[in-house]
Amino acid sequence: MAGLSERILAGDNLALARLLTLLENGDDVGTEALDRLFTNTGRAWITGITGPPGGGKSTLVNELIRQYRSAGLSVAVVAVDPSSPLTGGATLGDRIRMTEWHSDPGVFIRSMASRQFGGGLAQNTLAVAHAFDAAGFDHILIETVGTGQDEVAIASLALTTLLVQVPGTGDGVQTLKAGALEIGDILVVTKSDRPEANELARDLRRLRTLVFEPVDDPDHWEAPVIKTSATTGEGIVDLVQAIEHHRQWLLTDNRIVRRRQIIASTEIATRVESGLRRRLLQRADEASRLDSLVDAVVSRELTAHRAAEQLLAGFGQENRQP
Amino acid sequence: MAGLSERILAGDNLALARLLTLLENGDDVGTEALDRLFTNTGRAWITGITGPPGGGKSTLVNELIRQYRSAGLSVAVVAVDPSSPLTGGATLGDRIRMTEWHSDPGVFIRSMASRQFGGGLAQNTLAVAHAFDAAGFDHILIETVGTGQDEVAIASLALTTLLVQVPGTGDGVQTLKAGALEIGDILVVTKSDRPEANELARDLRRLRTLVFEPVDDPDHWEAPVIKTSATTGEGIVDLVQAIEHHRQWLLTDNRIVRRRQIIASTEIATRVESGLRRRLLQRADEASRLDSLVDAVVSRELTAHRAAEQLLAGFGQENRQP
Repeated sequence: MAGLSERILAGDNLALARLLTLLENGDDVGTEALDRLFTNTGRAWITGITGPPGGGKSTLVNELIRQYRSAGLSVAVVAVDPSSPLTGGATLGDRIRMTEWHSDPGVFIRSMASRQFGGGLAQNTLAVAHAFDAAGFDHILIETVGTGQDEVAIASLALTTLLVQVPGTGDGVQTLKAGALEIGDILVVTKSDRPEANELARDLRRLRTLVFEPVDDPDHWEAPVIKTSATTGEGIVDLVQAIEHHRQWLLTDNRIVRRRQIIASTEIATRVESGLRRRLLQRADEASRLDSLVDAVVSRELTAHRAAEQLLAGFGQENRQP
Repeated sequence: MAGLSERILAGDNLALARLLTLLENGDDVGTEALDRLFTNTGRAWITGITGPPGGGKSTLVNELIRQYRSAGLSVAVVAVDPSSPLTGGATLGDRIRMTEWHSDPGVFIRSMASRQFGGGLAQNTLAVAHAFDAAGFDHILIETVGTGQDEVAIASLALTTLLVQVPGTGDGVQTLKAGALEIGDILVVTKSDRPEANELARDLRRLRTLVFEPVDDPDHWEAPVIKTSATTGEGIVDLVQAIEHHRQWLLTDNRIVRRRQIIASTEIATRVESGLRRRLLQRADEASRLDSLVDAVVSRELTAHRAAEQLLAGFGQENRQP
């Protein structure tokens, strides 16, 4: 397997597919290949696309692929689909999309089911994105359903994050969790040929004004609201320009270094936390023990301090190898 | 010190003050006293009050004390003030307040400076609240400035949380972070005699509609917007009623059990996390090591996976006492 990373650097998509599977399975061979490849990462632009199910994210991603391809740029997609564990994450839409781009080596689409939880998905998604990055793809699109904590977290690990909202679902921006708005560098109203699109765009602008920081901070990026329609073709070019605009903004005054530090910190922290959690869970029936400890605190049998002490007993004491 | 908990149960406020200091300092004697007292907790109603600095929270708390006292109920206040580390958390307003209620044994006010960070403050605040609870106070008010992550977290550990907003600061609800709105069980517009109060109340109602869950969920509590004025006396009685209304709602269908489980889980998790963090930091210059690891990831020298491995090396391996 020593040749895996070399084959990937040489543009071998089959070797890349093999690595992705290894990474998804947490296989050491994959981790070691990524170690060798990691120095070749950092060149791709990573865009996260998040929003509610049925929001037209897949169509939007497809339109973005088309734009980038016509500009001669290669595109890799990580599609995280928590709603279809049975199909291993590959929805019908994904399959159609994969078929469309199947013969184009400049497009690589990988679906991942969010069977894992507790940060595992975020780790694997980023590992896959690093692999795409090393393989030389110009653009990496991470598509997630913006409902769970995990999915929002994944999108916020991108350099540019699109928050997608769809008009005419009856509840408008009500499905938008307040915390989600803050991670959107660009707010996208899809299916803008629908009559409710203008109202939604107006609501989003108003919501942005209401909840965002005052705009006189030079390091404040005011998220543009872009309306797109796959039917009429409206807004796709604007969206590509908005992503480029945000990219240029991040590249100004070294803002991107700060962003990359935040992403790296978050990625390390996620792995440390899941490592700690795994070590805790490795202890006999730790999970059910946590439940019973919570109940013991609620019924005032012991304090949270003592419950934490029980969970931490003997944990993390110095026993490093010399 | 064996008599400390007994003296507190007997209503000795000097013993209570002594325990609070022990708890704030993380002293084992305090922890052990709280162990003995904990079975006497769970009777007080804990209300969190959070909002921006200068939002009239202290005045509001004072009005609430007055209302509860005139109804014959005892009140304890934990005032967390991150802005005044030099005075140990006791601001001028606190001192005036303390003087006003000094001779009333049914009122106990404790100021805490948020010198600690990383969950330490949340732990100490809750420990102090538990002590007040055991001492038999009917109402416990936790007052925090709703800016930092910590302060918001503290307020969300209450049974009822008031989110305070003040009109006429020029930026209206702009200072309100989106995530903060979700923790408010009651939205309070203070200084309602100001001309901008109605507009702010309207904005808050609109924002609530925009970002909250659809209201057809039977377990959805629609946060009321209450306008209060210390000058005209408007709204204080309404606010007391709204707190009581929320209390009754939580007591219906056992919702309070779920709420208490969430609070207990959060309290345990906070303590476990800070315990883990402390163990990590106990290692030689772990903090600066984290910074250099982040930089190593940003400069592509090693993956986040390896950075996390280095931080976790030898950590949490089974070495329990038999």
